[in-house]
Amino acid sequence: MSGKKVAIVMGSKSDYPVVEKAVELLEQWGVEYEIRILSAHRTPDETGEFAKGAVERNVGAIIAAAGKAAALPGAIAAITTVPVIGLPIKSSFMDGLDSLLSMVQMPSGIPVATVGVNAAENAALLAIQILALGDEALAKRLMEYKVEMKNKVLDQDASMR
Amino acid sequence: MSGKKVAIVMGSKSDYPVVEKAVELLEQWGVEYEIRILSAHRTPDETGEFAKGAVERNVGAIIAAAGKAAALPGAIAAITTVPVIGLPIKSSFMDGLDSLLSMVQMPSGIPVATVGVNAAENAALLAIQILALGDEALAKRLMEYKVEMKNKVLDQDASMR
Amino acid sequence: MSGKKVAIVMGSKSDYPVVEKAVELLEQWGVEYEIRILSAHRTPDETGEFAKGAVERNVGAIIAAAGKAAALPGAIAAITTVPVIGLPIKSSFMDGLDSLLSMVQMPSGIPVATVGVNAAENAALLAIQILALGDEALAKRLMEYKVEMKNKVLDQDASMR
Amino acid sequence: MSGKKVAIVMGSKSDYPVVEKAVELLEQWGVEYEIRILSAHRTPDETGEFAKGAVERNVGAIIAAAGKAAALPGAIAAITTVPVIGLPIKSSFMDGLDSLLSMVQMPSGIPVATVGVNAAENAALLAIQILALGDEALAKRLMEYKVEMKNKVLDQDASMR
Amino acid sequence: MSGKKVAIVMGSKSDYPVVEKAVELLEQWGVEYEIRILSAHRTPDETGEFAKGAVERNVGAIIAAAGKAAALPGAIAAITTVPVIGLPIKSSFMDGLDSLLSMVQMPSGIPVATVGVNAAENAALLAIQILALGDEALAKRLMEYKVEMKNKVLDQDASMR
Amino acid sequence: MSGKKVAIVMGSKSDYPVVEKAVELLEQWGVEYEIRILSAHRTPDETGEFAKGAVERNVGAIIAAAGKAAALPGAIAAITTVPVIGLPIKSSFMDGLDSLLSMVQMPSGIPVATVGVNAAENAALLAIQILALGDEALAKRLMEYKVEMKNKVLDQDASMR
Amino acid sequence: MSGKKVAIVMGSKSDYPVVEKAVELLEQWGVEYEIRILSAHRTPDETGEFAKGAVERNVGAIIAAAGKAAALPGAIAAITTVPVIGLPIKSSFMDGLDSLLSMVQMPSGIPVATVGVNAAENAALLAIQILALGDEALAKRLMEYKVEMKNKVLDQDASMR
Amino acid sequence: MSGKKVAIVMGSKSDYPVVEKAVELLEQWGVEYEIRILSAHRTPDETGEFAKGAVERNVGAIIAAAGKAAALPGAIAAITTVPVIGLPIKSSFMDGLDSLLSMVQMPSGIPVATVGVNAAENAALLAIQILALGDEALAKRLMEYKVEMKNKVLDQDASMR
Repeated sequence: MSGKKVAIVMGSKSDYPVVEKAVELLEQWGVEYEIRILSAHRTPDETGEFAKGAVERNVGAIIAAAGKAAALPGAIAAITTVPVIGLPIKSSFMDGLDSLLSMVQMPSGIPVATVGVNAAENAALLAIQILALGDEALAKRLMEYKVEMKNKVLDQDASMR
Repeated sequence: MSGKKVAIVMGSKSDYPVVEKAVELLEQWGVEYEIRILSAHRTPDETGEFAKGAVERNVGAIIAAAGKAAALPGAIAAITTVPVIGLPIKSSFMDGLDSLLSMVQMPSGIPVATVGVNAAENAALLAIQILALGDEALAKRLMEYKVEMKNKVLDQDASMR
Repeated sequence: MSGKKVAIVMGSKSDYPVVEKAVELLEQWGVEYEIRILSAHRTPDETGEFAKGAVERNVGAIIAAAGKAAALPGAIAAITTVPVIGLPIKSSFMDGLDSLLSMVQMPSGIPVATVGVNAAENAALLAIQILALGDEALAKRLMEYKVEMKNKVLDQDASMR
Repeated sequence: MSGKKVAIVMGSKSDYPVVEKAVELLEQWGVEYEIRILSAHRTPDETGEFAKGAVERNVGAIIAAAGKAAALPGAIAAITTVPVIGLPIKSSFMDGLDSLLSMVQMPSGIPVATVGVNAAENAALLAIQILALGDEALAKRLMEYKVEMKNKVLDQDASMR
Repeated sequence: MSGKKVAIVMGSKSDYPVVEKAVELLEQWGVEYEIRILSAHRTPDETGEFAKGAVERNVGAIIAAAGKAAALPGAIAAITTVPVIGLPIKSSFMDGLDSLLSMVQMPSGIPVATVGVNAAENAALLAIQILALGDEALAKRLMEYKVEMKNKVLDQDASMR
Repeated sequence: MSGKKVAIVMGSKSDYPVVEKAVELLEQWGVEYEIRILSAHRTPDETGEFAKGAVERNVGAIIAAAGKAAALPGAIAAITTVPVIGLPIKSSFMDGLDSLLSMVQMPSGIPVATVGVNAAENAALLAIQILALGDEALAKRLMEYKVEMKNKVLDQDASMR
Repeated sequence: MSGKKVAIVMGSKSDYPVVEKAVELLEQWGVEYEIRILSAHRTPDETGEFAKGAVERNVGAIIAAAGKAAALPGAIAAITTVPVIGLPIKSSFMDGLDSLLSMVQMPSGIPVATVGVNAAENAALLAIQILALGDEALAKRLMEYKVEMKNKVLDQDASMR
Repeated sequence: MSGKKVAIVMGSKSDYPVVEKAVELLEQWGVEYEIRILSAHRTPDETGEFAKGAVERNVGAIIAAAGKAAALPGAIAAITTVPVIGLPIKSSFMDGLDSLLSMVQMPSGIPVATVGVNAAENAALLAIQILALGDEALAKRLMEYKVEMKNKVLDQDASMR
C-alpha cells in the first residue's frame, strides 16, 4: 500500500475555504494528494471517470466534500472500491443537516465514511489513518500527532490550574 | 405535447408498495407510463441511459422514488431536461426526513420537484398536471378530479352535520 | 404548449430579494412571465381569482414563494390544474423548515412541486423545464445550460488541479 | 356573549377519532357546537363561506383540526374575526411537526391559537375558556373542572404514598 | 364582556424588545392593558396572585411571553380560567423550538393558545379577537384591519405588476 | 448528610411504569424514599408545599418525572435548594423531545439536573450519587455497582469472543 | 460533607468563555473549586486519573463542559461516584444539539446531570446545591439568591407597571 | 497489509441483532475478524487495552457500534491509529439521532468514519474496502459485489418492466 495518495474532491469551488484545512494538513504531513472539483450533478461523466480510475491512480482514500443534497460521495462510492470519506459542508439550511443526512444515510451496499459537518481536518486524518495501515512512518506520525494533541491540552491545563 | 407519457422509477423493489398508488392512479386515468427499477448507486450507467433517452421516449415527467440518501431523482435530473418529481420514501430514520432533504435541497441548476414523504398519489397527479398542459382532455379530467374530491368532502360534511 | 408563460407569485414584497433570482433567470432566458404579490391569508379572493384564470392566461407553471406557515402554493394548487412550484422562503425560524414542511407535506390530491429553501433559481429552471416540454428551443437552451454549468465546473477543476 | 357556540371543523373524516374528544367534552359540558368537515384545499369556497358566516351564526370560537401542511385554521382565520384554535393532527411524519409548524407559524396579522398535537381536549377547553368570558356559569364550571383535576391528582397521590 | 382588558406578562425585561410590538398594537387600537414582569420560577407566588386576580381585574386575555423552558403561560393557565396566549420568545437555542414546545405541548386540561415564535403582533391580535367577541367596535376594527392588510398587499401587487 | 432520603415525584400516575425502575433500584439499594404524584399545573399549591418542606423532611435529592411541556421539575426547583433531577417522560411527540427541552433548557438561576428520556434508573443513580457524598456506605455500594456493570460486560464479552 | 469543593473541567481552552460564568459565580460565593482542561479523547489517561482521585480530593460535584460529540462528562462519570454535571457547549452545529444529546442520553448506569446549552451559571448553581446539602451556610446563601432573583424581577415589574 | 483483520466491538449484547449483519457479511466473504463487547463507560480500561493492542493484533479496521450517547467509537479512536468505523445503533429516541450525532460530530483530531443508523452491512463493507487497499483478492470481490448488486437491480427492473 506504500505510495498511495489521497484524492480530495469537492462539488464546487465555494467549498474550498472549508476543504482547505484538509489540504493544509496533507501538505504539512507530506502526504501526496490530488485535488479536483467535480460535481455529481453537473459533471457526472467526469465524476464517474475520476472514480473509475482511482485504483489505478493509486488513490488510497477519497475525501468528497459537498453541501445541501450532497450526492458526490455516494456517486463516487458507487463506482470505486476505494474508501470514500464524506465531508458534509454547511450551507444555509440547518447547519448542514441536509448534507450530513445525504451522506451518512447511504443505501445498503455503498458506504460513505462520514465525518462531522465542515470537519475537514478529521477527513484528512481519517484518510491518513487508512494510508497508514500500509505505511509505518505515517502510522508513527499519527501517534506523534496524538501526543502533540495531548501535550497541547496538558499545556492548556497547566496554564489554567 | 400530446402523447407524452410518465416514467416511474424507483430505487428498489422494496419501494413498490408506496409507489403502487401512483401506478394505480395513472392506470385509472389511462395515462401511459413506463416503470423502471434503477439505482443511482447500483446501476448508475443504466440510470444515465434511462435519463438520456427520456426526451426521445416521449416522457413528459419522471417520478423518481427513493429512500434514505435518495440520490436517484437528482442523478436523473442532472442529465435530462424532463421535469423530475422526487418522491421521498420513508424508511426507518426520522420518518423519511433524510430522503426528503436529499431530494429537495438540490444544488442550484438541477431542480427536483419534491412532493411529500410517501405521497405517491401527489407525485402522479403532479406528473399528470404537467402532461395536461398539452392535453386538454387530461386537464378536464383534473378539474373533474377536483370536483370529485370536493364532493367527497361535502358528503362527509353532510353526514357529519 | 407554445407561448406559455410562467407566473411568479410571492406572499409579500419582503420575499422579493429571494424571488429576484428567479425573475432574473427568466429575463435572461427570454421566458415570458407575470409577477404578482398575493397572500393566501390577506388577499384570499385575489389569490383565488389569479388561480382560476391561470389556464386562460396561458400560464404553464406557477412559482409560489412564501415563508413561515406558507399556505400560498397550496391555496393556488387547490384551484388550478397548472403545476405549482413551491419556493419556501427562509425566515427566522429553523432556516425555513416551517415553510418547507408547509409546502411539501400537502394533503393527497393537491400536489405542490417543492424546491429547496430559497432556491429561486431552481424554481425558475423547473418552470422552464415544464414549458420546454412543448418548446424545443427552450429544451435546447436547457441542454446548453447543463453544458455551461459543466464547463464552469471543468474550468474550476482545471484551475484547481 | 351569552348563547355563543363553538364550531368544530376538520379537514377530513379521518381526523374524527382525534377530534371526537373535543366533541365529547363539549357534549358533557352542555356547550352548543356545530361540526363540519371542510378542506382548505378541496372545498375552499365552502370553507370561506363557513368562515364568513361565523359571527352571524353566533360562533365564539372555532376549533380547526388538520394534518400535514395544515392550512385549514389559517384559511378560516384569514376571513373571520372569531378566534381560531388550531388543532394539529398527527399523521405519519415526525409526529405532526409538519402540522404544528403549519399552524403556529402563521404570518403576522392572522393568528391561530395553536394547541398541542392531537390535544383535542385542550382545544375544547380553550374554546370554553373563551366563551366563559361572557358566561359566568361556564366560568364556574371551568373552576370546578380545575378542582376535579386537582382532586384526581390528590387521589392518585394518596394511593401512591 | 365590555370593558375587558388584556394582560401582558413576560418572564424577564429582556423579553420586552419582542413584546413591545404587542404593546404598541394595543396602544394604537386603544385597547386597555396591564403589563407585568413575572417569572414562573423566580416569582411563583406573585405569578399565582396575578393569575388568581385576573377575572376580578376584568382581564379578558393574558399574553404570556417567555423563552427557553417557558413555564410562564402554563403556570398562569393552571390557575385562571382567562384564556392564556403563549408567546414563545426566541433565545439562542434552535430559534425558540424549546420555548415553542414548552408552551404548545401542555398537558391535557390546561390549554395554552400558542402563537408563532416572537409573533408578538399575532399574540396581540388574538387577544383582541377574544375581546371583540363582546365588543362590536373592536370586531369592526378587526375587519377594517383585514381590509388594511389586504390593501397593503394589493398596493404592493400593483407596484410589482 | 446521613439519613437523607430521595423524593420521587411524577406528574401523573401514567408516568409510573417508567418511574417504577427508579423506585425498584432505590428499594434494592435500601435507600429511603418518599413518592408523590404532584402536578405543576393541576396541584400547584401542593407542589409548592412539597418543595418548601423538602429540606425539613431531610430530602437530599428530588427526582421529578413529567412528560410533554414538563414544568414539574422547574416548579419544584424554583422553590427548594434541594437538587432536582429532571426525568423526561416520552409521550407521543418526537420521543419526548418536548419534555427533554422543557426540563433541560431552564432559565438561569433555577437548574434542573436532567437525565435521558425515560432514563429512570439513571435518575435514581444520580440521586444516590448525591446522597453518597455524605454516606460512605452508599459510595462504596456505587463503586461495587460499577464493578457489577463491568463484570456483566466482561461476561458478555467472554461469551461473545 | 463540609469542605467539599467543586471541580470544573472543560474539553478545550476554547470552552472557557462560556465556562467562565460558572467560575465567577463560584468565586463570588466563596466556593472552593479546582479547574482543569482535560479531554476525553486527547488526554484519556489524565481524565481517568482526575476522575479516580475526585473523592480523595474532596470534590463534591464535577462540572464537565464540552462541545460537539461531548464525551467528557460521561468519561468522568464512568469512573467516579461524584455527581457529574454536564454542560453542553454550543459550537457551530444546530446550536449544540449534538453536545446536548451526547451528554443527556447516557446509557443506563452512568448518569450525567445535564443542564442547558451554555448554561454555565446553572451548572455552578447545581454544584452548589449539591454541596449545600452538607453545608448550611451555603444552603442559606442559595435561599438568599432566590430572594435576590425574586427582588430583581419585582423591581423590573415595578418599573414596567 | 495482507492478513489484516476486522475488529467488531459493540457496547452491549443488546446491539448484536443489528451488528449480526456485519458479522454475517464478513463470514460470507471469508474476512477474518475478532468480536468484542466493550463499553466506553462500563469497561473503560478494557476498551483502552483493546484499542492499544489493535495495531499489534493486525487489525485493519474497527467497527464500533453503540447507541444513545455513543462514546465507544470515539473512545477507541482516541487511542489507536487504526480507522474506526462508527455504527450508530437506533434505540428509542429519535431513531438514533442521538447516537449518530455522538459519533459523527467528533472533535477535531479524532475522526470516526460514521455510517448510517443501524447500517451494519455498510460498516462491514467499509471495513472491507479499507482492507482491500492491500488485498487484491478482496478488491476484486468488492467489484464483483457491485456487479451482483447491479444484477439484482437489473433483475428487479426486468421483472417490473
